[in-house]
Amino acid sequence: MNHPPRRIALLAFPRVTLLDLVGVYDGLRRLATMNVDPEVTHQIIGTEAAFTDDSGFPLRPESVYPSLDAFDLLVVPGGFGTRALGDDPRFVEWLRGWGSERPIASVCTGSLLLGHAGHLTGLRATTHHTALLELRPFCREVVLERIVDEGRVVTAGGVTSALDLGLHLVAKYWGAEARKTIATQMEYRGS
Amino acid sequence: MNHPPRRIALLAFPRVTLLDLVGVYDGLRRLATMNVDPEVTHQIIGTEAAFTDDSGFPLRPESVYPSLDAFDLLVVPGGFGTRALGDDPRFVEWLRGWGSERPIASVCTGSLLLGHAGHLTGLRATTHHTALLELRPFCREVVLERIVDEGRVVTAGGVTSALDLGLHLVAKYWGAEARKTIATQMEYRGS
Repeated sequence: MNHPPRRIALLAFPRVTLLDLVGVYDGLRRLATMNVDPEVTHQIIGTEAAFTDDSGFPLRPESVYPSLDAFDLLVVPGGFGTRALGDDPRFVEWLRGWGSERPIASVCTGSLLLGHAGHLTGLRATTHHTALLELRPFCREVVLERIVDEGRVVTAGGVTSALDLGLHLVAKYWGAEARKTIATQMEYRGS
Repeated sequence: MNHPPRRIALLAFPRVTLLDLVGVYDGLRRLATMNVDPEVTHQIIGTEAAFTDDSGFPLRPESVYPSLDAFDLLVVPGGFGTRALGDDPRFVEWLRGWGSERPIASVCTGSLLLGHAGHLTGLRATTHHTALLELRPFCREVVLERIVDEGRVVTAGGVTSALDLGLHLVAKYWGAEARKTIATQMEYRGS
């Protein structure tokens, strides 16, 4: 078990896959609501003030391009919007500014964004099964798994693996018992 | 396979469990985005213009207390906010106005709302495992299952069963092949 992060940021952007975000959010937010670790806070951060996911779901993040200094763990979901962001120098520099010390995690094609910002260099990583080839230039090895834990950097596979990632991070930083408590409340039955 | 609904409404309200909503939304929204049935539309409808889920996630539905005449299928998620809504006569009458012809589905404690509005009378139903006793007065039989399909009314269990419900509704109205296509894209591995 690692030293647990206290201030979690979850990224949202235009054309995000909302379940990528909410699937990992649900496990992590319960650290506070279920009193597993009442000191944990989270914030939905975004690249714009108001936008929609890939199917018209209205989203308004709590902050826009905040200073990343305020957070200890960053979660990056995927979606069609990752293609535009990967080509956006402002976004890529901002994400690069996360640095190489603090933990960062992605779901689905969110790993492409981690790749663009240099966070996957020399590492194994995964993504949605249709985007494996796209991920190749950014990392040492692309693998088809639901969770690839390289220590500081954890990448997850497509969409539903967001739920696995949330619970994986709970176990990694808060322990197996915390994971079990939260998974039971979620009626999670994956592995 | 039943005659498929075309206009889907997904309810949001203060202190909703966001994954209840987004878990079922992800399967259903893909009917259009993946061109399985391009005529299907959906709308996030709400009881207020702006509010948060149970952990501060900002939500702004596309319409507030819309006429339910505009929809063919209604999805009701759960969350701590169901307790206040169940005691709100305006809400209960509005939900009762859905009538007894069109399909309606719930996730988690959303079934308590269906119960308050009389939609579970004489039926088997389920809810989150901690709320089974609360559901008892509203239905013929409470069962601990992930999906309880009573024909027009389908109830699902806690939180993660939202994903099962979305795919169950896809199979029920659009067929097993549609379900398989969408589940594969979601990298869903539940039963």
